[in-house]
Order: sequence, then C-alpha cells, then structure tokens
Amino acid sequence: MADTTTDIDRKWMSHALDLAEQGAGYVSPNPMVGCVIISTEGQKIGQGFHERHGEAHAEKKALDDIADKSSLEGATVYVTLEPCAHHGNTPPCCELLAEQPIDRVVVAMEDPTPKVAGKGITHLRDHDITVDVGLMQEEAEDLNEFFLYHQSLNRPFITLKIAQTLDGYTAAPDGSSEWISGPQSRALVHRWRSQYDAVMVGRNTARLDNPRLTVRHVEGRQPRRIVIDGPLELSEDLNLFSDQYEEKTIVLTHNRQKYENEADPMLDMLQSDYFHGETLLVDEKDGHTDLRQAFRQLGQLPLTSVLVEAGQQLSSALLHEQLVDKVECFIAPKMLGGGTKSIINLDINRMSEIMEFHDLEWKQVGNDLLFRGYL
Amino acid sequence: MADTTTDIDRKWMSHALDLAEQGAGYVSPNPMVGCVIISTEGQKIGQGFHERHGEAHAEKKALDDIADKSSLEGATVYVTLEPCAHHGNTPPCCELLAEQPIDRVVVAMEDPTPKVAGKGITHLRDHDITVDVGLMQEEAEDLNEFFLYHQSLNRPFITLKIAQTLDGYTAAPDGSSEWISGPQSRALVHRWRSQYDAVMVGRNTARLDNPRLTVRHVEGRQPRRIVIDGPLELSEDLNLFSDQYEEKTIVLTHNRQKYENEADPMLDMLQSDYFHGETLLVDEKDGHTDLRQAFRQLGQLPLTSVLVEAGQQLSSALLHEQLVDKVECFIAPKMLGGGTKSIINLDINRMSEIMEFHDLEWKQVGNDLLFRGYL
Repeated sequence: MADTTTDIDRKWMSHALDLAEQGAGYVSPNPMVGCVIISTEGQKIGQGFHERHGEAHAEKKALDDIADKSSLEGATVYVTLEPCAHHGNTPPCCELLAEQPIDRVVVAMEDPTPKVAGKGITHLRDHDITVDVGLMQEEAEDLNEFFLYHQSLNRPFITLKIAQTLDGYTAAPDGSSEWISGPQSRALVHRWRSQYDAVMVGRNTARLDNPRLTVRHVEGRQPRRIVIDGPLELSEDLNLFSDQYEEKTIVLTHNRQKYENEADPMLDMLQSDYFHGETLLVDEKDGHTDLRQAFRQLGQLPLTSVLVEAGQQLSSALLHEQLVDKVECFIAPKMLGGGTKSIINLDINRMSEIMEFHDLEWKQVGNDLLFRGYL
Repeated sequence: MADTTTDIDRKWMSHALDLAEQGAGYVSPNPMVGCVIISTEGQKIGQGFHERHGEAHAEKKALDDIADKSSLEGATVYVTLEPCAHHGNTPPCCELLAEQPIDRVVVAMEDPTPKVAGKGITHLRDHDITVDVGLMQEEAEDLNEFFLYHQSLNRPFITLKIAQTLDGYTAAPDGSSEWISGPQSRALVHRWRSQYDAVMVGRNTARLDNPRLTVRHVEGRQPRRIVIDGPLELSEDLNLFSDQYEEKTIVLTHNRQKYENEADPMLDMLQSDYFHGETLLVDEKDGHTDLRQAFRQLGQLPLTSVLVEAGQQLSSALLHEQLVDKVECFIAPKMLGGGTKSIINLDINRMSEIMEFHDLEWKQVGNDLLFRGYL
C-alpha cells in the first residue's frame, strides 16, 4: 500500500469494492470494477460500477453521476482496478479521467491485461495527476479471482462444490441424496450459480438427477450449463437439452472423427438447428475426456469461472488431475456409514502424499458447516 | 429459574460453576460441585469446590474458607448442586449449612441421586432458610452430563472421538494416520483424556498402533484404559499391559466357560499377580463382544464416562448399537480419496434413515474443524 494513503482513503476504496461486487455474474469476462469520486470538501460527488459486459465502465458511470461538474476541481477518484488504456467497447477510461480537473486517483491494483498493464497509470501521471496504487490490493484481487486466474491460466477458475455427510458420503446406498445439506446451504449454491460463468456436471449426474442447474430460490443471472458426455449417451429429453435455458447448455463430447462413418443421431441433434446450445469436441485421453483440454476450450469461449456440481467420478478425476482451484464442501451433521463416498481414487498411498488445502475458511451455514480451501 | 433471582445471583452462580469445573476428572463418580458464600454486604467471604473423590464437599470447603464466622450472619450460599442429605464419606452438607446463621441458599439443580432428591432442600427450608432452585440449571446439567447420564442409564456416558480428513478417511491406504489432525486438536484430546474416567480402544487399534492412551502434552489425571479383546489375541508386550500405568488397564474379553478345558496363557497372565489391571468377562453376541453388556459392567465399576478412540470397526459398531451419546469429530483440511473410511456399516439404506445429530457445535481448532453433536 502506498504510504500516502489514509484511513479515509481506505473507507472510500472499501466502498468502491462493495460497488464493484454488484457486477458479479454480469460483467464476465471483464473484471468487476467500482469507482467513487470525492470532492475537496470530502463529500462523495459520484459513484459507479461496471454493471454489465459491453456497457459503460465504472469510471464513466461515476463521472456521469456528477450533476455539477465544477465539483470535480481537485477531486480524488477511487477505483478498484487501474483505468483501462485501450479502445474497446468504450473509450479508454484513463483518457476520460485525464481530461477532468481532478488532483488524484487511488487505484487498488494494476490491470494485468497486456493491453493495459500500467499504461493507464502512466497516462494519468503524464497528465500531472497523482496516482497511488495498491490500496486494499488483496481485497481487490480476491474480488476478481476469476478474472485473474483466467488471465494467467488461460482456463476458467474451477471450484468444486461437495455436499456430504460428516462421514464423507454424498448419497445413501439406494442412491438418494435429497437432502443431505440444509436449505441455507442449497440457497447459497444458487447464489454461487448466479456468480459463476457456468455450472458443470458429468454424465452420471445428468442422467440420474436430471438437474436444471438454474438459479432459483435467489435472484440472479442464469449461468451457462456444461455437461461432459464423452460417448454422447445422454437422452435429449433431459432438462439441460430441452428446457427454456437450452441455449445456455454446453455439451463436451469426444472428438468424433473415428465415428465419422457411423450414424450418430445425438450428435446430429446437437449440431442441428433444433439445439440452441453449444457443442465442444474434446479429445479422449486414456479412455476418458481430456479434462485439461476441455477447460482450455472453455477458457477460450471465454468462460472465466466454472462451478462443478458433479458426482464422485468427475469430482475425483478433477482433483486427481489438479484441475480444482477451490473446494467448497458442505458438511451436514449426519452420518450414513455407507453409500457413495464423496472422493475416491486420488492415487494417494501414504500420509506424506496427502492433499492439503490453504487459505482455509470454516463457516457455519444453517446447521451445516461450509469448508472453503484452495489447492 | 426462580423469579426471585437477580443478575448478581447469576454472577455468583457462574463463579461457583467455574470453581466446580476444576474438579473435572478427579471427583468421579461424584458430580463436580462448586460453592460461593456472599455476605450481606455483597462481599465474597468463602468459596470451595469438590476437589477429589473421598475428600470434602464444596459446601464444607467454602465454610472452612471463612476465617471470621460472624460474617456468615444473613449470608447467601450459592451451590451448583443440591446439598447432600446422606452420611457418606462426609457428614450431610444440608445439616452443616442449616447450622449456620445464613439466610438463603441458591441451588442450580436438584441432586437426582435417590438418597438426596430434594431431601437436602427440604431440610434447609425446614430450618427457615430460603432456598431458590434452578438458577443456571442448564449450565449445571451440562457440567455434570457424565454424572447425570450414569445416574439415569446405569452405564457410562460414551463419547466417540474421530479424527478424519475432509473426505472422511482416518488412515491412508498404507495404514498410516500420523498425523491427520493438527497439534492443537491432539492436545485437546489429551485434555479430554484427563477429564473422562476412561479411554477405550478395540483390538485392532491396540495391535496396530500400540497406543498408551495416557495424558501427555497437558497437565492432568491419567485415565483408566479399556481395551476390548474378545478372543484375547493381543500380545502382553503392548504398552497397555506393560507400561507404568498398567494398573489402569481394563481388558474386556469373552466369557471363557467354553474354553475352560483349553490352555489360555494370556487369560492366565491377566488374572495372575503379574498383571495389576482389571479383567472383565463379557458375553459374546453374534460372534462379537456384547457391547451393551460391556458398558453395563463398566458402569458398575463405577465408570461414569468413556472416551472411545477406536478405529473403524468398533466406532461403527458402537454407532450401530446406539451406544454413542456424543461424537467429537475432528475434520482436517486434507483429502486422501482412499484408505480407511471413518464410519461404515450403519445399515442405513435410504435418506429417511439417516443418522442425525442434535445440540450441534462447529468450532475451529488450529487448522482443523471440530464437530460436536449428540445422538
């Protein structure tokens, strides 16, 4: 953090971060950004946030929020991300700000995008505006972890959600699992669905549970829905292929060159005008879908974040392939003593090989416990 | 709670409860009791608690704590349990109090012991002392849950301790388990050992881990150590049979009538002068130790509380037999994806049969999460 920043700076940056968060789920693949403008008298004269992909940036919204432009004389601008320096859907924010009679801009973090990467800050300084960088940088990075991971890994940020009993089972021996976790936990998952770019399941879950993967129980944007079905055995009657959000469905299936001389009615359907979703062809690897390649393709769509709500097989495979960034595990105060184990086959034999999490958080949600950890 | 009690009463009863707790592990099979005496000026003039089985009761200690007996004129006595009415190792406390020039006694809970059960309170009232009963009764009952369960069930209070990974495994595939839980969690288990009358393991844990089950890492009283070994196959070289706490070991083995014509060198050893511990003979039931009978016998020793630190087989059998009152489950922020599952074979097939806990508590201990729940 810059030495010149104060508690008052922190208060306004915190406010800007809260504004930014209101764009969650709507601005992807852009980052969430919030902006607050404070007059020389210390009054908030304007605020704004990036509300939706393709619409105005936070700085523009905040400037437009000011009726009396004379109050901008000597003002300070708080913005959670370095103002952009490139002409995209909107003119560069750094130029827009440099035109104003402001004195100072406080920036939480630099924009790592190669087209920006310090150029916005340099432009402001070249126009004799004081720029302080790094105030509440950690909070700003946490807020935009999806964007930052996607920028650096060229694949979406991957969160694995698990809902299990205390003794680690996700379904009873008869296959039933409604409901292991409580209503507050399930509502929280719907909130997440509205914030992630996409929700993913495997073939077994799609077939057995016929999920909709939509946001209900809470207000929010509907996510893309990804189903992995390598051999393409699922029925077209499933909700994912036939409900009103059908155009949000992405099917990942094996590259079909080797089947090209065979009839493949399901693939025909997916590639026909009858299906309004998307079909991605992914290579096989050791008889399974090449998950790493699958996520590379998803990153190029571009998707910046995927919430995996899969069963035992896909969840375990993702952990085994080191394709999980964060685990959100609900633990219900119940025991089954049998049924489906949450995680298997990690190829761990000894305690020295155990999989450990960092940046842990344990939090009670209703009667359940939510574990959050990074890998 | 009596209507006549005040916040000041609550403050002193809370103090008496804190005092009582200092007897944990030392007073069994008696309950923990604390006593505080307050003068008419509102000054604390005496306090005491039951420190050790066979020694003075809390009321006697608190009275002995007062140098100037004239200060007792009109005083109020706070005691966490109804003063006793029977001649045991010590004279009845209700008589001792009735002889004092005190005005009022505040009692957290009645003593359910048939020999007392209201008689102590009646005796005080018969001597024109005001008695308020029920202040902080819930806290007093929680404090003495071991004593109360033992009184009503004729068996010890049984706590099952589990230390597992997030995905519900207690050992890696190679059998190793050191250490799944962190140092703070392990220290807490040693604290519990000093507070429970006994710690229990099964044959497999005794053989594979050769545990000592002693209190280390913290100060405290060493517990009895119970090992269940129906067929008596364990080696006499194990710590439980050969270390300096050997006399604290209790072996539960099958009733040997049917083997009476065979040589049984281990049983001979256990019943000889070489072994200073105790051997209890328990019937077999369906090829296993009759656990319900075993705990009845342990209750008669008398043991009021047993901390089970067993492996998968015994832990699961106790849950299945509904012989667990409380579960203390440490969940470490790690995954194994294989190895030994914490709990199996509960004969649960459907979600409607799931085992649910009540009076839940989720608490972070170091990096681990401790779940506490009652059955």
